[in-house]
Amino acid sequence: MLTKKEAAEAVRNAKVVTGVTWAQLAEAVGRPLAWTTAALLGQHPMSKEEAGAATALLELGEDVALALQTQPTRGALDAAVPVDPTIYRLYEVIQVYGPTIKELIHEQCGDGIMSAINFRLDVRRVPDPGGDRVVITLDGKYLPYQW
Amino acid sequence: MLTKKEAAEAVRNAKVVTGVTWAQLAEAVGRPLAWTTAALLGQHPMSKEEAGAATALLELGEDVALALQTQPTRGALDAAVPVDPTIYRLYEVIQVYGPTIKELIHEQCGDGIMSAINFRLDVRRVPDPGGDRVVITLDGKYLPYQW
Amino acid sequence: MLTKKEAAEAVRNAKVVTGVTWAQLAEAVGRPLAWTTAALLGQHPMSKEEAGAATALLELGEDVALALQTQPTRGALDAAVPVDPTIYRLYEVIQVYGPTIKELIHEQCGDGIMSAINFRLDVRRVPDPGGDRVVITLDGKYLPYQW
Amino acid sequence: MLTKKEAAEAVRNAKVVTGVTWAQLAEAVGRPLAWTTAALLGQHPMSKEEAGAATALLELGEDVALALQTQPTRGALDAAVPVDPTIYRLYEVIQVYGPTIKELIHEQCGDGIMSAINFRLDVRRVPDPGGDRVVITLDGKYLPYQW
Amino acid sequence: MLTKKEAAEAVRNAKVVTGVTWAQLAEAVGRPLAWTTAALLGQHPMSKEEAGAATALLELGEDVALALQTQPTRGALDAAVPVDPTIYRLYEVIQVYGPTIKELIHEQCGDGIMSAINFRLDVRRVPDPGGDRVVITLDGKYLPYQW
Amino acid sequence: MLTKKEAAEAVRNAKVVTGVTWAQLAEAVGRPLAWTTAALLGQHPMSKEEAGAATALLELGEDVALALQTQPTRGALDAAVPVDPTIYRLYEVIQVYGPTIKELIHEQCGDGIMSAINFRLDVRRVPDPGGDRVVITLDGKYLPYQW
Amino acid sequence: MLTKKEAAEAVRNAKVVTGVTWAQLAEAVGRPLAWTTAALLGQHPMSKEEAGAATALLELGEDVALALQTQPTRGALDAAVPVDPTIYRLYEVIQVYGPTIKELIHEQCGDGIMSAINFRLDVRRVPDPGGDRVVITLDGKYLPYQW
Amino acid sequence: MLTKKEAAEAVRNAKVVTGVTWAQLAEAVGRPLAWTTAALLGQHPMSKEEAGAATALLELGEDVALALQTQPTRGALDAAVPVDPTIYRLYEVIQVYGPTIKELIHEQCGDGIMSAINFRLDVRRVPDPGGDRVVITLDGKYLPYQW
Amino acid sequence: MLTKKEAAEAVRNAKVVTGVTWAQLAEAVGRPLAWTTAALLGQHPMSKEEAGAATALLELGEDVALALQTQPTRGALDAAVPVDPTIYRLYEVIQVYGPTIKELIHEQCGDGIMSAINFRLDVRRVPDPGGDRVVITLDGKYLPYQW
Amino acid sequence: MLTKKEAAEAVRNAKVVTGVTWAQLAEAVGRPLAWTTAALLGQHPMSKEEAGAATALLELGEDVALALQTQPTRGALDAAVPVDPTIYRLYEVIQVYGPTIKELIHEQCGDGIMSAINFRLDVRRVPDPGGDRVVITLDGKYLPYQW
Repeated sequence: MLTKKEAAEAVRNAKVVTGVTWAQLAEAVGRPLAWTTAALLGQHPMSKEEAGAATALLELGEDVALALQTQPTRGALDAAVPVDPTIYRLYEVIQVYGPTIKELIHEQCGDGIMSAINFRLDVRRVPDPGGDRVVITLDGKYLPYQW
Repeated sequence: MLTKKEAAEAVRNAKVVTGVTWAQLAEAVGRPLAWTTAALLGQHPMSKEEAGAATALLELGEDVALALQTQPTRGALDAAVPVDPTIYRLYEVIQVYGPTIKELIHEQCGDGIMSAINFRLDVRRVPDPGGDRVVITLDGKYLPYQW
Repeated sequence: MLTKKEAAEAVRNAKVVTGVTWAQLAEAVGRPLAWTTAALLGQHPMSKEEAGAATALLELGEDVALALQTQPTRGALDAAVPVDPTIYRLYEVIQVYGPTIKELIHEQCGDGIMSAINFRLDVRRVPDPGGDRVVITLDGKYLPYQW
Repeated sequence: MLTKKEAAEAVRNAKVVTGVTWAQLAEAVGRPLAWTTAALLGQHPMSKEEAGAATALLELGEDVALALQTQPTRGALDAAVPVDPTIYRLYEVIQVYGPTIKELIHEQCGDGIMSAINFRLDVRRVPDPGGDRVVITLDGKYLPYQW
Repeated sequence: MLTKKEAAEAVRNAKVVTGVTWAQLAEAVGRPLAWTTAALLGQHPMSKEEAGAATALLELGEDVALALQTQPTRGALDAAVPVDPTIYRLYEVIQVYGPTIKELIHEQCGDGIMSAINFRLDVRRVPDPGGDRVVITLDGKYLPYQW
Repeated sequence: MLTKKEAAEAVRNAKVVTGVTWAQLAEAVGRPLAWTTAALLGQHPMSKEEAGAATALLELGEDVALALQTQPTRGALDAAVPVDPTIYRLYEVIQVYGPTIKELIHEQCGDGIMSAINFRLDVRRVPDPGGDRVVITLDGKYLPYQW
Repeated sequence: MLTKKEAAEAVRNAKVVTGVTWAQLAEAVGRPLAWTTAALLGQHPMSKEEAGAATALLELGEDVALALQTQPTRGALDAAVPVDPTIYRLYEVIQVYGPTIKELIHEQCGDGIMSAINFRLDVRRVPDPGGDRVVITLDGKYLPYQW
Repeated sequence: MLTKKEAAEAVRNAKVVTGVTWAQLAEAVGRPLAWTTAALLGQHPMSKEEAGAATALLELGEDVALALQTQPTRGALDAAVPVDPTIYRLYEVIQVYGPTIKELIHEQCGDGIMSAINFRLDVRRVPDPGGDRVVITLDGKYLPYQW
Repeated sequence: MLTKKEAAEAVRNAKVVTGVTWAQLAEAVGRPLAWTTAALLGQHPMSKEEAGAATALLELGEDVALALQTQPTRGALDAAVPVDPTIYRLYEVIQVYGPTIKELIHEQCGDGIMSAINFRLDVRRVPDPGGDRVVITLDGKYLPYQW
Repeated sequence: MLTKKEAAEAVRNAKVVTGVTWAQLAEAVGRPLAWTTAALLGQHPMSKEEAGAATALLELGEDVALALQTQPTRGALDAAVPVDPTIYRLYEVIQVYGPTIKELIHEQCGDGIMSAINFRLDVRRVPDPGGDRVVITLDGKYLPYQW
């Protein structure tokens, strides 16, 4: 049986071979773009139908479809501090703005957190005369500390 | 002369004593909320006027105002992997969704990054019948790899 | 102004001097035992009344009471892997049983987590003919992964 | 000969293929649910009968059964600090409440520890109007420091 | 109030000044040599009488005596891997012989551990024609894994 | 040619298959129990005769015998801090008692170390009415710092 | 499909076998020397034509050419701190001169960074009577912190 | 006596108070810009005259001048991997281009290194229509491996 | 093509099989003993003739000879702090005497280093009535800090 | 009472103030140069006479003399991997030549180590037409593994 990591590798390779995009995969699967991408990279379990739709489009077999349905052990960074520059910038945002975000969550909501479980994510390119921008929206349920 | 870290500590204490909010500080300073918070926590240098407005509201002295104007050496986490749960959830988002964000930036923009320098940040509480949400917007200029 | 860590140190010392117990402090504060202990060790913010009741019993001053009310930056281990044997055994439980607990949460509840925010904790000594036992109950809301 | 890790992988795969649950495995083996799960994940040695009952239900061969009987070198985390969110929450509990638990063990029992060897574990879903809860019970013999 | 670490430092200094030995301290305290040394270095709590006997001999004050009676948070190495050569050799023994000791415990006793809580330690110089030897005896209760 | 690690793995497996004990191996090899175990786990080189005697008893081939004779690169822990509980307790002993042992070596012998090279080790189960004990004896030559 | 790392390994081997130089590869590819080297080592994606020209010269197949075109996950050091002396000296330069470079960027440009994305690199041997020199030019766009 | 680190702190503060630039300091000292900056930050020892000229301009005392003349223990990063974004980009350059630089040094010079001891550094702002650039020149003597 | 590490492994195995010594290899290669050993372990590139002479004596093939000629990426420790006791003692020497060596280099030569590139090494057994000694000579060119 | 580290700092400062050299200190103390330097940096205990001679020459008080006589906890590096370039080169030697030295010790002496306890060290500047050299001699007793 394939591991989720091997299945993700197969998905990446099939994308190169078939030229299918994450957007097309999301449409075929019928789920949001970022969720679908994360699931195909092994971070969320798919339903049988979702896995089937994705593997059909990517011309992959039943073994990949099965792996996509299993429960993941999540976590995808290559190291505690990510090395790839595109991913590192997200870490840098936490280094520079992490306590700022904490202060603003506490001021606006109280003593609690933004959930990373009841959570959705969006990544969009936004045209801008000063140069297009990448806008990433992290949208999680507020969870107050509650005994 | 105070270090930026000591100045940030003084700001936090003065907020407790005076009851002034980050929102009031941002308004007094005349800059966006998240920028102002980050600057007062020592992650951005303030102009003389900005530092003056903030310290006046917080009833702090000239030594704090001076420290707020100096060039920061940025980085604010207590450890490579943050321990506080409110901040950790941001790290967890990178662990689970980092490669997803990387894939989507590359698909939508090409081989490059979201800048963390030409960058703005917003944190908002959004009412929701299923429980209010924290929405964090990371908005950085797209920078293509360019030789 | 005292930091939460200095306040916690003052609390520990006052307990030795006055002989007051965590149980007596919890009763005075009117909150559960483990919550009160955690709050007095600096991991939860107390209300003004709660802080006042605790510091009165411990014969501590207003500076400690104020520190107990401020928002904590949580996290209390002396190292990523705790060294003290009483605390290390909890880490050992995760090393040996962490994946077991994960499997059982997924089998009984689905793809999600036990919240550590909407969470309560209990520690009790339970008499047993084969030697008394320590029973620790971790009780957190189930949070399903939900987009 | 299979390693315990390979045997655990075979067990996980066979569970997906056969649809057998941990609860059914525990019943077949005749041991508590959490013990059985931990043993099948390679953290406890099984007797010949226990291993036989589990592998029969999972339709696995003698090589897996043999590996399940060997003495484990315990420890199952992917890193010193676990990355998977379901497991990380347990680590977060130690970060936030570890010293609290230590204080309460000492207050109730004296200078000693909760054993992680003479120890049992239970994981249960508990219905709750405010949302079902996961209740994890750690139950270990109290061991006083004794020269 | 002194911390246990400050008290240990005071003990070490007083030993230099007074010329008192660990053996004399153990005799005055009425406890075994290694236990007494460990306690005076802050790794075990002393009774009021024990602390009093030790501080009297060392000509130290009540503040040290009080600190010696408080509950320790144990752990005394300067780093995860100790640097001082005399202590490092103990770590080297675990690196070279750790799995050997594990195998022999399992062969002689079954699946379990040597307790480090119900435990005593002895360090002796043993005359030997080929050069005197240091003999360290680790003597802990066997604890079988027991659910 | 097999590595020492692969040879050790072959030895462990052959022990399960043949039911031969470390004690029987030590007797066949004609060396002390702990030395023999360590050598078969790859931490000491064996003579041709010793390796032959061990592999004959274990019904292993010449390739294993050859690997057992090669010079080891020593060190056997899975991580800087060992994870398996049976081995971890040895590390905990160093954390709690390392400086104590150092003090006692210095008091009894002077400024030097217990050698881990001119060294022998014994592990024994000792019957005890309060529960049998594991007694580990570390016996190394005293080496004074000598220029 | 080959990974970028396997493709880089194939490139290195083919260089030894064919005797082709990085300079010849850069000329064939029609891109700067350092860019071409980095791309063939897997740190930049090549166009189909570039990959074709390089693999033709190196007598490598289509699988390598395809791998050279895929999007890299960047980062090439063997450890957080590089071990190879030729590479380590670059790290040493940051250790000794990092804050100096930071001060000079801030003095000459303001609060910002040298981009490592809009960036080019040159490595040249420069004859010198006192011994030839290696001159490395790092040339990146200045990016001011800009909200 | 001041440490070099305290002297560097005094220099930074005096620069803010007096408004003196690194360029003015270099001119007063009569050494290159980057060398002077590094020396005043504690990474090179200054002669008595150099230290005198710098402290005179900065209106600092003899204690700072003395500290600037002592032999440094070099190394200035806040962590093994630097956190400040302006400095981190230099580390990122090594992560992405380190092996490229190594290959090009070996191709152009043979088996050796660029010295970081017989070494000079230059940092310049270069006007560019596409946005000004920061150009950093690392210029070290080539040292061949030589037995 | 073999990696340098695989070639080194082949060399070690061939030494066991053929009984050839490092001294004989150095003589056949016509280079110093320590250089030859390091080169055959993959830390220096050999010329075609040197590699040929060594592989002939060791009865190894052309693939090993080729690998021995390629440019190494140097660094041979199994971890940042070496675990094998024979190698660890060298690390211990740096821990105990590193700053001493630094002081003496500075006192005798000035502000600079002992080169590890223009460097030779010798290891010799020296008879001694008090027990034979291992004498290791590190002999590197003095390099002054020079701008 | 001063710690050994504070005493070492006092020694370094007094050397700057008085202009006394390590060589003069060694002569006054009557011990070898490297031993004396190491002892004054806190890595060896001095006799009362030795400490007296050194502090007299350095014009330091009795508190320093006393600290120099106490038993050290050895280990002097600022990090597991040293950062200062003069000291780092020693670490680099172990990285590149550590296994070479191990092989040569085993070939010349058998299965054992060079002692770092029964050990002496010498650092000398040696004139050389190609540039003066630093020659460091590590001279330790050979200790065979001996049960």
